[in-house]
Amino acid sequence: MSDEQPFDFSILDRVGAPHRRYGPGEKVFLEEDTGNAMYMVRSGRVDLITYGIILENVRSGGVFGEMALIDDGPRSAAAIAAEPTEVVVIDKPTFIAVVGADPQFALKVMGLLATRLRRMNKQVG
Amino acid sequence: MSDEQPFDFSILDRVGAPHRRYGPGEKVFLEEDTGNAMYMVRSGRVDLITYGIILENVRSGGVFGEMALIDDGPRSAAAIAAEPTEVVVIDKPTFIAVVGADPQFALKVMGLLATRLRRMNKQVG
Repeated sequence: MSDEQPFDFSILDRVGAPHRRYGPGEKVFLEEDTGNAMYMVRSGRVDLITYGIILENVRSGGVFGEMALIDDGPRSAAAIAAEPTEVVVIDKPTFIAVVGADPQFALKVMGLLATRLRRMNKQVG
Repeated sequence: MSDEQPFDFSILDRVGAPHRRYGPGEKVFLEEDTGNAMYMVRSGRVDLITYGIILENVRSGGVFGEMALIDDGPRSAAAIAAEPTEVVVIDKPTFIAVVGADPQFALKVMGLLATRLRRMNKQVG
């Protein structure tokens, strides 16, 4: 996402989205956890990991855990901070508020959702 | 979608989304067509068909072809009017305008996207 245009973090602050900090190796969530929010990396780096394999590095402006917005199923990968990291928690009401302020954000998250669902298919298939 | 709450079609009229009418058996698009818009059924019924199998019936308030908003790939199924049908064309700028007016719409389309991508997986896998 951050390749296209820098995300305006002030939207998240305006809607009061909470921040969380993690040290290197700390988990944001584990595979199979239930969750009701996605996350945006504010600083640092989060690795998405399944079966010990790093699927993706998510850096500032990138989001992960977006499936939880549409689905109450378990997390399909673990999310582990790779360095000192700050994330913003985006639950459903926050997502609605952000999309109301920046509708393009919806298309970005949809694109990410499609990419990740297709990658899961390849792994399964 | 229409099971949850009726879609407010006036949003689409306000943003000037074009309408198209089809007779029974007429195609909205065929599998492998390229496209840059999704569609919402205003009245009538559209069948999504692949390899001669009807995957889904889409009725008033339902949308289809949503992958085209995030992806320039070919259509993954044909969309054929099953009866006299009117659809509204929702291209990217229209989607952005609709989501700006009704941010919940983004979550609905994301849910649909996930459902359909997962169904494709099952067929492929």
